[in-house]
Amino acid sequence: MKLSELSLSALHELYDTLSHKYEQFRAQMLNLDLTRGKPASEQLDLSNELDGILGGFYLLQDGTDVRNYGGIPGIPEARALGGVFLGLPANEVMVGGNSSLTWMYQYIEFMLRQSWQQQAGTSKVKFLCPVPGYDRHFTICEHFGIEMINVDTSEQGPDMGQVESLLESDPMIKGIWCVPKYSNPTGVTYSDEVVRRMATLANKAGPDFKIMWDNAYAVHHINDEHDTLANLMDIARENSTQDSIVMLASTSKVTFAGAGISFIGMAQNNLASFEAFLSVSQIGPDKVNQLRHVRFLVDSEGVRKQMEKHKAIIRPKFQLTEQILSQHLGDKDIATWTRPNGGYFVSLDTQPGIAGKVVEMAAAVGVKLTPAGATFPYGNDPADRNIRIAPTYPPVSQLRQALEVFVVCLQLTTLHKIIGNLEDTETKP
Amino acid sequence: MKLSELSLSALHELYDTLSHKYEQFRAQMLNLDLTRGKPASEQLDLSNELDGILGGFYLLQDGTDVRNYGGIPGIPEARALGGVFLGLPANEVMVGGNSSLTWMYQYIEFMLRQSWQQQAGTSKVKFLCPVPGYDRHFTICEHFGIEMINVDTSEQGPDMGQVESLLESDPMIKGIWCVPKYSNPTGVTYSDEVVRRMATLANKAGPDFKIMWDNAYAVHHINDEHDTLANLMDIARENSTQDSIVMLASTSKVTFAGAGISFIGMAQNNLASFEAFLSVSQIGPDKVNQLRHVRFLVDSEGVRKQMEKHKAIIRPKFQLTEQILSQHLGDKDIATWTRPNGGYFVSLDTQPGIAGKVVEMAAAVGVKLTPAGATFPYGNDPADRNIRIAPTYPPVSQLRQALEVFVVCLQLTTLHKIIGNLEDTETKP
Repeated sequence: MKLSELSLSALHELYDTLSHKYEQFRAQMLNLDLTRGKPASEQLDLSNELDGILGGFYLLQDGTDVRNYGGIPGIPEARALGGVFLGLPANEVMVGGNSSLTWMYQYIEFMLRQSWQQQAGTSKVKFLCPVPGYDRHFTICEHFGIEMINVDTSEQGPDMGQVESLLESDPMIKGIWCVPKYSNPTGVTYSDEVVRRMATLANKAGPDFKIMWDNAYAVHHINDEHDTLANLMDIARENSTQDSIVMLASTSKVTFAGAGISFIGMAQNNLASFEAFLSVSQIGPDKVNQLRHVRFLVDSEGVRKQMEKHKAIIRPKFQLTEQILSQHLGDKDIATWTRPNGGYFVSLDTQPGIAGKVVEMAAAVGVKLTPAGATFPYGNDPADRNIRIAPTYPPVSQLRQALEVFVVCLQLTTLHKIIGNLEDTETKP
Repeated sequence: MKLSELSLSALHELYDTLSHKYEQFRAQMLNLDLTRGKPASEQLDLSNELDGILGGFYLLQDGTDVRNYGGIPGIPEARALGGVFLGLPANEVMVGGNSSLTWMYQYIEFMLRQSWQQQAGTSKVKFLCPVPGYDRHFTICEHFGIEMINVDTSEQGPDMGQVESLLESDPMIKGIWCVPKYSNPTGVTYSDEVVRRMATLANKAGPDFKIMWDNAYAVHHINDEHDTLANLMDIARENSTQDSIVMLASTSKVTFAGAGISFIGMAQNNLASFEAFLSVSQIGPDKVNQLRHVRFLVDSEGVRKQMEKHKAIIRPKFQLTEQILSQHLGDKDIATWTRPNGGYFVSLDTQPGIAGKVVEMAAAVGVKLTPAGATFPYGNDPADRNIRIAPTYPPVSQLRQALEVFVVCLQLTTLHKIIGNLEDTETKP
């Protein structure tokens, strides 16, 4: 039954019942965490074979000894593997350390130094940020003083009308952050139409406009029904806009989150100038770990099999999340949330103005949620309504407990708001 | 016999003999490389045990799962190991990826953004560079537009009189590059007096003046007789100048050159602000590889034993280098060179003005040497006389061949100069 259909006394009664439950949670001294999209231990166990997989063989087919210095672009075999993730040929891929975030930071720094800063002069470089989005993208912009502009997102992806008209009105907009598949946090996969319009943005904005295509969840399915994403680079090539494309992926949620390898892809000429920039700060990546990954994952079929195993572990957690949210919130018309086919998150929207309070209430009884606002630039959710739930890391029993706390906090906060509104109305003349 | 004591005709005769030899080398189509300080395959073999050493155990004593995300400072066990290299307690050390060069780049970027750039305004930040030195230090400065000032080096280390008076005259000098032990390329270890004076520089220059103490060869002995280096941080603490100290080291020439771990050390308050800076560009280092290194090297005694094994492999190469240089150049008074107790290089000074030509001649018959000038800022050796020889990488037979080419090229170039001078003098009225 919708809360809005309850009488004031029924609302008070429900509030008291839930308050009692909340105080019981407090007594349990919980210490639970739904904040970050981390793989669970059982997922990490899937890759334990990595350590020792080389069996003493460190030479590549081309004679390179992976133990020694050098080779900034990464080993050819790993570049080919990166191509599987990015949908690119090996010679358009470089392979780095354990974090695609580092690639992104370095690439933004590179572009600032190489062209954006001169073009901007004393004004600011700007970036488009589809929201809600990934907090660490926004932190990079903030660090470099790049001004961020919110762009609305629908189930098709970013609102391309907004994107195109913003670009027309402001030449200092130099890029856009995209998580095009199973997006963080909404789980949305960009439609073919959105990808097609993305691919042609540079026709107006020029090749210095960069689409940061962070395909972090390229192969990370939860359900048997998979989303499919059009190949941005293929379409860009048809439109001669390939210079605006920067593609990213990693094995962080495929093998070891903290000891994987990462991929960056772009047209060969752009890759070459980026490599020259990188040569100042490094001799080359950890090629031994790259070879481990090649031996372990092998090819697209190896990646597919590995991700099936992950799916078997995380799907029950997403199912449980859906079950608890439906059971407690389903008919009350107080929140909407996503049911993604892949990725690592459920994105929930509360009634406006209360997300921050929900997160605070949960924290007060030992359940950590991602800070409200974190999914928006500058940590500022204008409607204060988005909450990102990350169900993969905790064991099922802890996930259940944390979600049960969460739904109580969400209901209490919503009730508090509804009751307050009703009483305000009643006391008015 | 000194070349200067030979008659013109004897010089011509020697020149012809050596020219004949040189042409024989050309016919051999050699492809030899003495450019970079890379470990040889046998040295890399010493650490093959690293891959697989974890045997499926990924948990630390404090419960951390090294396979997962996080922990920018590195794992406690590896921080303690880093302390062995840097002479610091574990809580003043952070542990990173496979390259201390990346630490240096990031630290310079950090200081530029945090303070140097504001202080400099429209003028330039400057750095002192003891010469000859490490080319990659200089490249970082050049990349960031930091002006470099040469400082002479003696067998005691940098000329501290020069350093102190330069600092007094220019407040925009914000740092100095040091390789304090078995220096690259001279093999010099800084004397206690030099270290003491380094430690007190910040008394005048202030805590924003940073001593980049790149202790790359801290444990890398060649001979049984070891150099010893005073602990800069200990002395700095006695003088309350610890904020100016940044210490660096890595396992690049201890385990795998391309897949080791790196250390940066400084006072805890400085480490904390640097960590905050790093958190924008990374989630955390590869902790799995850090744990491998802890299991493999264990402690200072483990490091000592490992370095004994390296010594057994590289000492014969340094002995051979000394033998060939002495045999062909020893009594001719045409070059001086170093006989280091550790490190990776022999530094040779030719007569002024010919180093570049020697390197060119060697390259023309297939022997690559580090480009002349590379050991100086902007690639410019004002006297054009320093040549860095890196004997570790090639097998002994190739090293011998490369050095035999080198001494012929050096003698030919020197003879050409001497003969030219003599003939000039003779033809003058």
